[in-house]
Amino acid sequence: MTEHQRLVEELVATWYRTIPLSQFMQVEVLAFTDTNNLTASAADHQAELSLSQVSQLITTAPLAPNINLHQTMFAGSIYTLMTLTGWGMVWLQQQLASVKGDIVLADAQVKYIAPVHQQPSAKVIWPALDLSPLARGRRVKVELTVELWCDDVLCARFCGVYVSLPSVV
Amino acid sequence: MTEHQRLVEELVATWYRTIPLSQFMQVEVLAFTDTNNLTASAADHQAELSLSQVSQLITTAPLAPNINLHQTMFAGSIYTLMTLTGWGMVWLQQQLASVKGDIVLADAQVKYIAPVHQQPSAKVIWPALDLSPLARGRRVKVELTVELWCDDVLCARFCGVYVSLPSVV
Repeated sequence: MTEHQRLVEELVATWYRTIPLSQFMQVEVLAFTDTNNLTASAADHQAELSLSQVSQLITTAPLAPNINLHQTMFAGSIYTLMTLTGWGMVWLQQQLASVKGDIVLADAQVKYIAPVHQQPSAKVIWPALDLSPLARGRRVKVELTVELWCDDVLCARFCGVYVSLPSVV
Repeated sequence: MTEHQRLVEELVATWYRTIPLSQFMQVEVLAFTDTNNLTASAADHQAELSLSQVSQLITTAPLAPNINLHQTMFAGSIYTLMTLTGWGMVWLQQQLASVKGDIVLADAQVKYIAPVHQQPSAKVIWPALDLSPLARGRRVKVELTVELWCDDVLCARFCGVYVSLPSVV
């Protein structure tokens, strides 16, 4: 088992143990990956190629416990899945950076674009933020965009501001 | 049993029957009231007093199924309770106006102001909107603000845009 797989198992166990709603919704992690991303940037009018690491978390939840009266995914479940996906990404990055912080959601916007007729995927990409201030006792603010996809259709977009507070030892 | 009490019972039964999450969260209605509101309005530089009807819906949910790892109410549960409160208000007003419409949430903003340490109340006031276009086969857009209170502290504010679509017969 890789370090990433171990962390994902711990994340889901933490959700289920401490947030009953996540277990009722049957929230699961589909993938947590780091991929190399070749990006071109212009500096001093000269093109440069750089290799950056892109970290992505993808979660899901089945329709049955999350259905509404239109037989599509309930707006509350869609939001909650996206909230947990963003929270999970911050939690995973804190583990990888060996820093601790209590992560809370400060505010969020959600836009429902299309009905969710099948089991969706919620995807978030880590904005390569420095979490080291937590180790120095300072809070960190993280803005994340989570997208909810169903087949190849973007069904909802969530923008959330998370704040991680240095853990009181 | 009054007409309002009967409608509230039907609303909660509809939630529990069609949205499993609402039943797991144990969402309940605390009150659905119409109160007379004396308002002063200026017309042609002459003050006028008018009696308007203010309709308010108050809901709640216990902490236990909605807890998070900080032992306060989970952000997803807070949002879902407020979403259902707004949806419920539109549903109730449609029943009172004898019009039918499929109510969906189009987008929403939520701000978390303070942690919820005790069972909260979610409150919404109806903006006295005309729902009669539904009877003529036209959609209605409703913007609602729902506030979540815990004792005398405002803990969260939700602004949602609901759209009610004429039911296909």
